[in-house]
Amino acid sequence: MLRKYKAKIFVTLRPSVLDPAGTAVVSGLTQLGYSNVESCRIGKFIELTLTAPDDNAARQDLDKMCDSMLANPVIENYRFELIEVESQVGV
Amino acid sequence: MLRKYKAKIFVTLRPSVLDPAGTAVVSGLTQLGYSNVESCRIGKFIELTLTAPDDNAARQDLDKMCDSMLANPVIENYRFELIEVESQVGV
Repeated sequence: MLRKYKAKIFVTLRPSVLDPAGTAVVSGLTQLGYSNVESCRIGKFIELTLTAPDDNAARQDLDKMCDSMLANPVIENYRFELIEVESQVGV
Repeated sequence: MLRKYKAKIFVTLRPSVLDPAGTAVVSGLTQLGYSNVESCRIGKFIELTLTAPDDNAARQDLDKMCDSMLANPVIENYRFELIEVESQVGV
């Protein structure tokens, strides 16, 4: 029996890694008149649906997917939230 | 008196807009052996620190920043979470 999950994955640059895109956004916003913006870091927000027998299996798969494809572990961190959306998919 | 806020902004493609990058991720993961992945949509996760006199002012500023620069309202939706990190900045 498989369950269907929705994962929300947040991929962010490690704090020690420079973010030129974020710096450009700060200067762009400042030029638009928002001088109250201090810093900006830009990451990815990935929404993924997958099926798995249980929570643990889904989390293990997601960890491996993030390490091998969705995030670059050298410069990025990730975390994810898992929501079960449906049980008993294709019994 | 200004307060310091941290905003977490989620920018996602509108549901009606195709996401070729997300589709590529699904086929890439499938080729890596993760045939349990059904769909993937890729958005942006922006962390921004700003100062404002109060919550409402910060939210108004963020709405305007998202509409004018951080998101493309034609094809993207956004939502944000606001956390106060410090009161009485530079009284």
